[in-house]
Amino acid sequence: MSESEKFGQLCALVKETAYLKSTLASLEWDQQTYMPVGAGAFRAEQITFLAGEIHRRETDQRVGDLLGELSSSDLAADNQSDSGATITGLKREYDKKIKLPESLVKAQAKASAIGQQVWIDARKNDDFKSFEPNLNEIFNLKKEQAEAVGYEECPYDALLDDFEPHAKTSEVAAALEGLRQELVPLVAAISESSSRPDTSVLKRNYPTEAQRRFGREASEKIGFDYTRGRLDVTHHPFCTELGPGDVRITTRFDESFFNTSFFGTLHEAGHGIYEQGLRTDFYGLPPGAFCSLGIHESQSRLWENLVGRSEGFWNFFYTRAVEIFPGALADVQQHDFYKAINNVQPSLIRVEADEATYDLHIIIRFQIEQAIINGELEIADLPGAWNEKYEQYLGITPPDDANGCLQDIHWSAGLVGYFPTYSLGNLHASQMYEAAEKELGNLQGMFSDGNFSPLRKWLNENVHQRGQTLTAQQLGEKVSGTKLSQEALMRHLNDKLAPIYALSPI
Amino acid sequence: MSESEKFGQLCALVKETAYLKSTLASLEWDQQTYMPVGAGAFRAEQITFLAGEIHRRETDQRVGDLLGELSSSDLAADNQSDSGATITGLKREYDKKIKLPESLVKAQAKASAIGQQVWIDARKNDDFKSFEPNLNEIFNLKKEQAEAVGYEECPYDALLDDFEPHAKTSEVAAALEGLRQELVPLVAAISESSSRPDTSVLKRNYPTEAQRRFGREASEKIGFDYTRGRLDVTHHPFCTELGPGDVRITTRFDESFFNTSFFGTLHEAGHGIYEQGLRTDFYGLPPGAFCSLGIHESQSRLWENLVGRSEGFWNFFYTRAVEIFPGALADVQQHDFYKAINNVQPSLIRVEADEATYDLHIIIRFQIEQAIINGELEIADLPGAWNEKYEQYLGITPPDDANGCLQDIHWSAGLVGYFPTYSLGNLHASQMYEAAEKELGNLQGMFSDGNFSPLRKWLNENVHQRGQTLTAQQLGEKVSGTKLSQEALMRHLNDKLAPIYALSPI
Repeated sequence: MSESEKFGQLCALVKETAYLKSTLASLEWDQQTYMPVGAGAFRAEQITFLAGEIHRRETDQRVGDLLGELSSSDLAADNQSDSGATITGLKREYDKKIKLPESLVKAQAKASAIGQQVWIDARKNDDFKSFEPNLNEIFNLKKEQAEAVGYEECPYDALLDDFEPHAKTSEVAAALEGLRQELVPLVAAISESSSRPDTSVLKRNYPTEAQRRFGREASEKIGFDYTRGRLDVTHHPFCTELGPGDVRITTRFDESFFNTSFFGTLHEAGHGIYEQGLRTDFYGLPPGAFCSLGIHESQSRLWENLVGRSEGFWNFFYTRAVEIFPGALADVQQHDFYKAINNVQPSLIRVEADEATYDLHIIIRFQIEQAIINGELEIADLPGAWNEKYEQYLGITPPDDANGCLQDIHWSAGLVGYFPTYSLGNLHASQMYEAAEKELGNLQGMFSDGNFSPLRKWLNENVHQRGQTLTAQQLGEKVSGTKLSQEALMRHLNDKLAPIYALSPI
Repeated sequence: MSESEKFGQLCALVKETAYLKSTLASLEWDQQTYMPVGAGAFRAEQITFLAGEIHRRETDQRVGDLLGELSSSDLAADNQSDSGATITGLKREYDKKIKLPESLVKAQAKASAIGQQVWIDARKNDDFKSFEPNLNEIFNLKKEQAEAVGYEECPYDALLDDFEPHAKTSEVAAALEGLRQELVPLVAAISESSSRPDTSVLKRNYPTEAQRRFGREASEKIGFDYTRGRLDVTHHPFCTELGPGDVRITTRFDESFFNTSFFGTLHEAGHGIYEQGLRTDFYGLPPGAFCSLGIHESQSRLWENLVGRSEGFWNFFYTRAVEIFPGALADVQQHDFYKAINNVQPSLIRVEADEATYDLHIIIRFQIEQAIINGELEIADLPGAWNEKYEQYLGITPPDDANGCLQDIHWSAGLVGYFPTYSLGNLHASQMYEAAEKELGNLQGMFSDGNFSPLRKWLNENVHQRGQTLTAQQLGEKVSGTKLSQEALMRHLNDKLAPIYALSPI
């Protein structure tokens, strides 16, 4: 068999696995949207079965043999070519997966299934103690995983790699520490400012149907393609890809708060535009797959914040907003609305945080999970460490654990190493936005005219279409011409917030 | 390995296949309900892949070996025991499937995929000639299938068996011929009657949201469990089972015609109540599977017609109907409404046919497909034969093929041998209803009080819970104590229609 025949066979095998993965995603989407409550037990069995089939295929000896033969071939010579990215990307994943003992995979699946159940009650009852043994087991299994997979510098590297491949903890920590050092004084200055936007206008009555219409119009206008996607309602908003022409986003509505659904929809649409922009000729393979969770998040945060909370965006959309919500907005000036949606206020809950404080929530989690994995922090001491950091970075102390260290689902679901990708996304987004503006000219002017396609096309060409032919770090540097740092994000925040809060130039 | 271990292994293998089948059903449900249009091409690939995986598992040598060893064991001794029904039922299906050459299975899949596309255009353009070559190929492949699988009396037996296992063409033909001989004069007498219900009341404005509410209320009241099911909107209504606690029915709305959605919903709810009533301890195995399509249809027709179009049903529901549709029904007497929903009128389109003419539509199709399979009718002569039979049995002649032999999707999809199960369902339904009344007492009185659970429970015990431990014929005879014939159905039709149309007693 020739090398190119072997390559074809490898791609065909992986494509079959991709059919099963998108099938599994369909079942999960349905579970969140339309599944009747009585179907839960069977759906869990069905999903477990499919997950097992997928794992069996991913660790199939035939795949391993083909990868072994191909990885020294000409086709693998250039990592950034389609064939090279495919072979090295698949081999990297394969080598990682076969290092995981089946007993560990099963123990993790079980621990997180039970963990999530216990966590739900623990949060409801503000009872950290009841969750402590589960969390302890989950983190211990994560440590085992790190040892099984191996790492260069520290165990956390191995966990981070599941979400941000190729990233090193030390590099991420350096970037986020740079960010923290500038964010803390900015947030403190804002807290002390006597200027305060009137956010009560966002808490008037916004009827659900009108919100649905407006969210759909705006997400379509920025480029989410509804012939290849849908918007549905779920308790927790998300974006999932069920096939190359099938990207589903969800939102939730709060009739007495404008932001929840509108900015949530722009956020998920940003994820969706990325998924819709991936190459279909390599569907299910590295050149047609998203680069990393950090890059994924860069796309959602870019459309949500850098576009959706900008003056240009509302120059175009505000008249329509007043038309759709006359009861809430008829007496509100555009600039007052703009200030309200950009309000900064230290708060306890990450998912409700504003653009400036959000990354401090992330940095706290990132530091804490590293400390646990390194053995520097015991699970029993987690609530104390959490509250201390909130006081230190945000100037507020959680009154209880439900609004503190129990607020997020991630750890209970075994997602350790995931949090920093949110902040990496914010850093990438600002750098990309600056690079796009440098090349395309005045973006705010385009937005004011309702012209979002130049930015979307630029992102498509420079980010989406590159898939995994570059690592996230390579992609970020290629797109922005600079290493990842806090500089672009801080420029953006200072430029936007200084006038709103009458801050002295920093 | 002991026999019972082998049996456990067999059931486990088949249960895994059931996970994949219900997964496939989920993808198909989504395709009809919520899938974005751009996802069609990938979904088709995905479904083809899963269908192939299912076929591979169903014809797996391990399954064949276990069945071979178990079929002579004690566990298989009693066909009507759970283990016996499981082993003999699975062996029967397995033996049939391995007789089909893969080339034939693929050729059929391709012919019906193309056939359906060509048929859509042919019907739209009323162009039978364009569809003739495809239909010819589809029927030729069906003849090949019959020869590959084998049969006792005639090739049509082998095709009928896919939908109505164990049924013989000669027996079905005898039952339907008995029905035809009594239906034709009844329909002729009604056509000549000077009494005519005023059906215009059904064609007033029935707002969609009100229809949705009423259909949901009525279907829930008769026993469709919405904690283990859903009602959605599709172009073609259907019922599908996605798991033991997950039965999905669909409807479509016509704002200017009451019947379409309401009776369609009762019909699909009848299918759904059957699926929800199956045993869950043998999910995916013969004791927990529906008996035959004829028995399935008996449940839908029973709830739609024998219950939903009865006086007792409307004694309970009419006040509510007037409340929900005041604009349409405030000035309509219950008895006039009752007569309108039971109107009999020979018409061209099967899916719009009333309770009395419906089976004549079926009998025509059943006779024609037998004639084609037997080589007595050429595809080219199909339109002529069709129109002749409509004139003969219903007294009307289709003006074109779009309203004639091109109206149904079945043949284009390769479903040959399916049609007679609709009429078998009608015959079974009437016999079951009479048997239930004999045991439970006055059902109409119960319906008048909104009490539908005695009938539902009786059906659950006597039909649903028996799964495939009996053949359809055995089940019908056990339930009704009599052989399948037209007698009960004709009694029902004569009793109902004679007063409405002032017919002399027949």
